[in-house]
Amino acid sequence: MTKVAAIVFSIIVSFLAFGLAVWLYRWVNNQESKNEKINTIGEMIKSGANAFLRKEYLVLAKFAGVLALLILLFLPEPIWKADSFLDVLNRNITITFAYIFGTIFSALAGKIGIFVATIANRKTAEAAVKSIRKSFMSGFRGGAVMGMAVVGSSLLGISLVFWITDNATMLLGFSFGASSLALFAKAGGGIFTKTADISADLVGKVELGIPEDDPRNPAVIADNVGDNVGDVAGMGADLFDSHVASITAALVMAAAIDKATGSGNIAMVFTYAAIGLFSSILGVIFAKMGKNDNPTNALNLSTYVTTGIFAVLTAVATLIFKFEWRIYGAALVGLVVGVIVGIATDYFTDDRKSPVRKVAKASESGPALTIISGISYGFLSVLPAMIGIAVSAFAAYKLTEPLGEGYALFGISMAAVGMLSIVGMIISNDAYGPIVDNARGLAEMGGLGEEVIKITDSLDSAGNTVKAVTKGFAIGAAGLTVISLLGAFISEVNTAAEALGLPKITGFDIMDPAVFFGLLVGASVPAVFSALLMLGVNRNAERMVAEIHRQFETIPGLKEGVEGVYPESDKCILIATEGALKELIPAGLFAIVITVVVGLVGGVYAIGGFLTGNIVSGLLLALFMSNSGGLWDNGKKYIEAGNHGGKGSNAHKAAVVGDTVGDPFKDTAGPSINTQITVVSLIASLLSVIFLTVSLF
Amino acid sequence: MTKVAAIVFSIIVSFLAFGLAVWLYRWVNNQESKNEKINTIGEMIKSGANAFLRKEYLVLAKFAGVLALLILLFLPEPIWKADSFLDVLNRNITITFAYIFGTIFSALAGKIGIFVATIANRKTAEAAVKSIRKSFMSGFRGGAVMGMAVVGSSLLGISLVFWITDNATMLLGFSFGASSLALFAKAGGGIFTKTADISADLVGKVELGIPEDDPRNPAVIADNVGDNVGDVAGMGADLFDSHVASITAALVMAAAIDKATGSGNIAMVFTYAAIGLFSSILGVIFAKMGKNDNPTNALNLSTYVTTGIFAVLTAVATLIFKFEWRIYGAALVGLVVGVIVGIATDYFTDDRKSPVRKVAKASESGPALTIISGISYGFLSVLPAMIGIAVSAFAAYKLTEPLGEGYALFGISMAAVGMLSIVGMIISNDAYGPIVDNARGLAEMGGLGEEVIKITDSLDSAGNTVKAVTKGFAIGAAGLTVISLLGAFISEVNTAAEALGLPKITGFDIMDPAVFFGLLVGASVPAVFSALLMLGVNRNAERMVAEIHRQFETIPGLKEGVEGVYPESDKCILIATEGALKELIPAGLFAIVITVVVGLVGGVYAIGGFLTGNIVSGLLLALFMSNSGGLWDNGKKYIEAGNHGGKGSNAHKAAVVGDTVGDPFKDTAGPSINTQITVVSLIASLLSVIFLTVSLF
Repeated sequence: MTKVAAIVFSIIVSFLAFGLAVWLYRWVNNQESKNEKINTIGEMIKSGANAFLRKEYLVLAKFAGVLALLILLFLPEPIWKADSFLDVLNRNITITFAYIFGTIFSALAGKIGIFVATIANRKTAEAAVKSIRKSFMSGFRGGAVMGMAVVGSSLLGISLVFWITDNATMLLGFSFGASSLALFAKAGGGIFTKTADISADLVGKVELGIPEDDPRNPAVIADNVGDNVGDVAGMGADLFDSHVASITAALVMAAAIDKATGSGNIAMVFTYAAIGLFSSILGVIFAKMGKNDNPTNALNLSTYVTTGIFAVLTAVATLIFKFEWRIYGAALVGLVVGVIVGIATDYFTDDRKSPVRKVAKASESGPALTIISGISYGFLSVLPAMIGIAVSAFAAYKLTEPLGEGYALFGISMAAVGMLSIVGMIISNDAYGPIVDNARGLAEMGGLGEEVIKITDSLDSAGNTVKAVTKGFAIGAAGLTVISLLGAFISEVNTAAEALGLPKITGFDIMDPAVFFGLLVGASVPAVFSALLMLGVNRNAERMVAEIHRQFETIPGLKEGVEGVYPESDKCILIATEGALKELIPAGLFAIVITVVVGLVGGVYAIGGFLTGNIVSGLLLALFMSNSGGLWDNGKKYIEAGNHGGKGSNAHKAAVVGDTVGDPFKDTAGPSINTQITVVSLIASLLSVIFLTVSLF
Repeated sequence: MTKVAAIVFSIIVSFLAFGLAVWLYRWVNNQESKNEKINTIGEMIKSGANAFLRKEYLVLAKFAGVLALLILLFLPEPIWKADSFLDVLNRNITITFAYIFGTIFSALAGKIGIFVATIANRKTAEAAVKSIRKSFMSGFRGGAVMGMAVVGSSLLGISLVFWITDNATMLLGFSFGASSLALFAKAGGGIFTKTADISADLVGKVELGIPEDDPRNPAVIADNVGDNVGDVAGMGADLFDSHVASITAALVMAAAIDKATGSGNIAMVFTYAAIGLFSSILGVIFAKMGKNDNPTNALNLSTYVTTGIFAVLTAVATLIFKFEWRIYGAALVGLVVGVIVGIATDYFTDDRKSPVRKVAKASESGPALTIISGISYGFLSVLPAMIGIAVSAFAAYKLTEPLGEGYALFGISMAAVGMLSIVGMIISNDAYGPIVDNARGLAEMGGLGEEVIKITDSLDSAGNTVKAVTKGFAIGAAGLTVISLLGAFISEVNTAAEALGLPKITGFDIMDPAVFFGLLVGASVPAVFSALLMLGVNRNAERMVAEIHRQFETIPGLKEGVEGVYPESDKCILIATEGALKELIPAGLFAIVITVVVGLVGGVYAIGGFLTGNIVSGLLLALFMSNSGGLWDNGKKYIEAGNHGGKGSNAHKAAVVGDTVGDPFKDTAGPSINTQITVVSLIASLLSVIFLTVSLF
C-alpha cells in the first residue's frame, strides 16, 4: 500500500466515523423526552456546561494565541535564522497553523461531546421508565457519538496535516495543539467537577444528611455540569491528545526510517490507525445488551469484540500489503498487555474483590484507617501496570530490533498504537459513564420513582466497573506513548544535530550527571503538578461551600424544601467555572517553565533524564491516584449497598471521607498527569534545536 | 597521611566517642529519680522495650544465619569456583564474617540506645520539676549516648574490617549486615510503634475522649515502648546503616582509584569520617541551653556548630595532608545542601509557616480536606529536596571530574560523606525526641502536675521542630549515598568483568530496553514496599484495638478509673511485638526477591535501571510521606494550642484523622524506604558477578 493510499483510506474511515456519529445523534435525539421537570433541569445542566466551555475556550484562545505567536517566532527554528520567506512559510508558519489546527479540532470534539451528552442524559433518564435496554442504548449511543467524533477528528487531522506538509515534525505542532487544549480541558474540567462534587457532598451529605442529587442543594446542578465538562469534554480531550500523540510519535520515527531505507512504515501506521477506528465503528454498531440485561457484560463485550476485530483485520492487512510481521507482533503485544493491565487494575477497584472489601471493613474503625488502607492498596495497584508497561515495551523493542536501525523504538510506538487502536470504543464506554450518572440525577430530581432510579443506578455502576478496564488501556497506552515520545525527541534532536553538524545522540546514560540531574527534577514534576491542582480544588471548594452555606442561611424555605423555592445554582456554577480556570494556571505554567529551565540549564541530556523521570514518576502517581480514588468510590458504594452497617453508619461516614479524598485523586490530578507528561514531552521535542544549541552546561 | 595512619586515627576517635558516651551515661544515671510511680511505669516501658528487642534479635539471628550461609556459599563468588581453601578463606569466609560483624555492631548500638533512653526518660521527667535546663540536659545527653555509640561503632567497625581485609568489597558485606538489621529494626520498630500509637489514639482519643497518655488506656505503655523501639533503636539502626553505606561506597570507589593511580583517597575518606565524628563529639560537649531557655535554639545551634567545626577541620586536614581541594569542595557542597534541604523541609512542617496553618484551617471543613491538603503540601515539599540532591550530585560530579577517571562518582560519594559527617549530632538530636516524648508521658502518668507537663511539652515540641532540619540531612545524605552505591555497583561489576574477561560497563543507557524495563519495575518497589508495611500496621492495629475493647469491657472499674485498677498493658505489648515481626516479612522479602528476579531476568543493565528507578521513586515517596506526616502532626498540635476551636472542636477531630494517617507515613513507611533502597543496592552489588554471568536476556 502506498503512503497516499493509506492516508486516503484513513480519511475515508474518518468520514465513516462522522457519518455514524450523525446517525447515532439522530437516533438519540429521536428518543422520547416529555417530562417537563427533567427538561428544565436538563436545560440548566446544558447551559451551565456551555457557559463553562465558552469561558474556557475564551481563556484558551488567548493562551493558544500567545503560544502560536511564540511558535511562529521560534519553532522549529528562530524565524530570523530562516533563509528566505519560503523557508519561513514552509516551517514556522506551517507549524503554527498545525498547532492552531490541533487546538481547534480538539475543542470541536469536546464541544460535540458535551452537546450530545447533555441531550442523551435526559433521554436515558426517561427511557429508564420503559426498560433498562432502551435506557442503556440511549446512554451508550450518546457516548458513542463522542467516541466517533473524537477519533474521527484525530485521524482526519493527522491525515490532513501529514498529507499537506509531508513532514512529521509538523505533526508535533498539531499534537502540541491537542495537548495544550487537553491540559486546560482535563485539568480545568477536573477542578470544576471536583469543586462541585466535594462541595455538594460536604454540605449535603456530611453536614445536612440530605441525599445525593437533592434538588435543594445549590451545588447539585454544578455537580451534574461537572460530570459533563470534566468526564465528557475533559476525558475526550485527554484521549484525543493520547491518540494524536501515539500516532504522531509512530509517524516521526517511521518517517526517519522510511527516509533512510525507503520502506513503507508510514503507510503501515496510517493503515493500522484506520483499522483501529474501523474496528471501533463495527464495535459500536453491533453493541447491544444481551438477554440477561447486564450492562457491564454488554460494555465489556463490545470492547473485546473491537479488540478481536482489530487483531484480525490488521493481520489481514499485514498479509495483503506485506507489512512487517514483527511490527504486527509489537502492536499485538500492546493490545494484549492493555487487556491484562485492565483486568489487573479491575482487581483493585472491583467491589467483589478483596481490596475494596478490606477498605470497607477498615472503615468501621474510622476514616484514618479508610485512608491508610486505601492509599496502601493504591500503592500496591501500581505493580501490575508498571510491570505490564515494562514488559510490553521490552517485548516490542526486542521483537522489532532485528528489523534494523530505528525499528526498536518504532516498535514501542506501534505497541502504543496497538493499545490505543480501540480508543473509539474506549471513549464510547467512558462517556457512557457520566451520561448515565447524570440520568440518575435527573431521575431523582425529576421524581421518576424508586424503580427508575434503581435501573439508572445499575447502569451507573456498570459504568464504574468498565472504567477500570478502559482505564487500563488508557494508562498503559499513555505509558507506551510517552516512551515513544522520548524516541521522537531523540529522533528530532538527531535530525537537528545532523543539520547543524553536531554529534548525534545515541542515548542517555544514567551515570551522566546531567541526565541524573534531569531524572531527579523530572520525577518531582508530576507530584508538584498534582499538588497544585488539588490545592486549587481545595481553595475553590472552600469558596463554594461558603456560598452554599450562604444560600441555606439566607434563602427562606430552601433548607425545609418548600415547594417552589429553588437554590441559586448559577452562582455555584460561576464559582466553579472561574475558580477552575484560575487555579489551573499555576500547575500548567509550572510544568512548562521547569521544562524550559532544565533544558536551558542542562541541555538535551538533562532533558532526556527529565523526560524519563517525569514518565516514571508520572505513571506511578497517575496509577496510584486513579486506582485508590476508584477503590474508595466503590468502597463507599459497597457500604451503601447495606454492608458494615450501610448508609448512615460510622463505616459509611468514614467511607464518604475516603470517597471525597479520592475525588480529586481520580478525577482531577490522576488523569491530568498523562496530559502533563505529553505536554512536557512535546515541548522538549519542539524546543530540541534550542536546547541543543543554547544551554548553560 | 598514610592509609594506616588514617585508620588508626579513626579508631582513636571512635574510642573517644565511646569514652564520651560512658561519661554521659554516668551523668544521666546520676540524676535524681525518686518518684515511685514514675519508676514503676518507667520499668514497665524498659522491660517492654527489652522484650521486643529480645524477640526481634531472635528472629533476626535466624534470618541473619540463613543469609550468612547463603553469603558463605555464593559470595563474592560461588564457593565451588574457588581455587583453594585459602581463596575461600580470603573471600567467602571473610565476607561472611564481615556480614555477621555488621549485624552485631548495629544490634549493639541499638541495644545501648534503648538502655540509656529508658533511663533518661525518667530523669528528664523528674528534672522538669526543677528546671527546664536540667530537664533539657537529661534528654539531650541521653540522646547523645546513642549518637556517640552508633557513630563510634560504625567508624570502628569499618576501620577494623578494612584494616584486617584491606579489601573494600568486604566492606559491602559489613554494610549489608548493617542494612539487613536496619531493615528489621526500622520497619519492625516502625510497625510496632505505629500499631500502638494508632490503637491508643483510636480508642482513647477518638472513641472515649480520654487524654493522650491516660494510664487507663491499655495501649499507652505499648505506645511509650514504641517510641523507644521505633524512634530510638530503629532510627539508630537506620542512621548506622546510612553512615556505614556512605563510607563504604566512598571507600569502594577510592580503592578503585587508588589501585589505578596510587593516590591517597582511602586515607582521605577515613580522615574526613573521623573528623566528622570528632566534630560531633565537640558539638555534644559544648551543647547547652542559652539564656532564653529555648530548647529549639539550643538543638539547632549545636547542629550548626558541629557543621562549622567540620568545615574548618577538614579544610585544615586538606591543607596539611595535601588532599585534593576539589574533593573537599564536594564534601562541602554536601554539607551546605544538607542545611538548605533541612531549612526547606522545615518550611513545610513548621507550624509558624503557611502549609501547616492552611492544613489546620482546611480541617474546619472536615477530615477529607485535611487529608487532601496535607497530601498536596507533602507532594509540593519534595521539590526543594529533590532539586537540592540533584544539584549537589551534579556539582560534586563536575567539581571532581577534572581529577581523572573514577573521581566524578567518588566526588558524589564524598558529598554524601560530607552530609553525613555530622550524623553523630543528628542522632543525638533525634534520640532526644522520643526521650522527652516519653518523659512527657511519664510526667502525666506520674501526676507531676500541669506546670511540669508544660515544660516537657515545650521540650517535646522542640524535638519535633529540629527533626525537620536533621531529617533534611538524613534524606539528602541517603539520596547521595544511594547514588554513590550505584557507582559502587558499577565499580564492582567492572572489577568482576575484568576478572572474567567480559566487556566493561560504561554506563546505563535509558534507551536500552533492559535499563528501561528495570527503571519501571524499580520505581514501583518503594510504593509496594510502603504499602505492605502500612497494611501490616493496619492489620496489627485492628488486633490491638480489639484487645483494648476487650479490656475496657471485661476489666471492672478500668473505664471509670477506679484507684488500683490497671490495664493489662503487657498483652498490648505482646500484640505489637508479634505483629511487627510477622508483618515486616512480606515487605522485606518482596524487596529482596524482586531484585534477584530482575537481575536474573535482565542482567546487570536491567539492575542498573532498577536501582535508579528505585532511588528516584524511593526518594520521592520518602520525602512525601515523611513531610506530610510531620505536617499533619504539627497541624494537630497547632489546633490543640487553641486555634480553629482548639481541642475537641470539629477541626481538631479532623486534624486527629490527619495525624493518624500521617503516623505510619512518617514513622513506618517513609523512613523505612531509605533502608529498603540501601538493602536493594547492596544486594545488587554483592550479586553483581552472578547477574553478570547468569541472566535470561
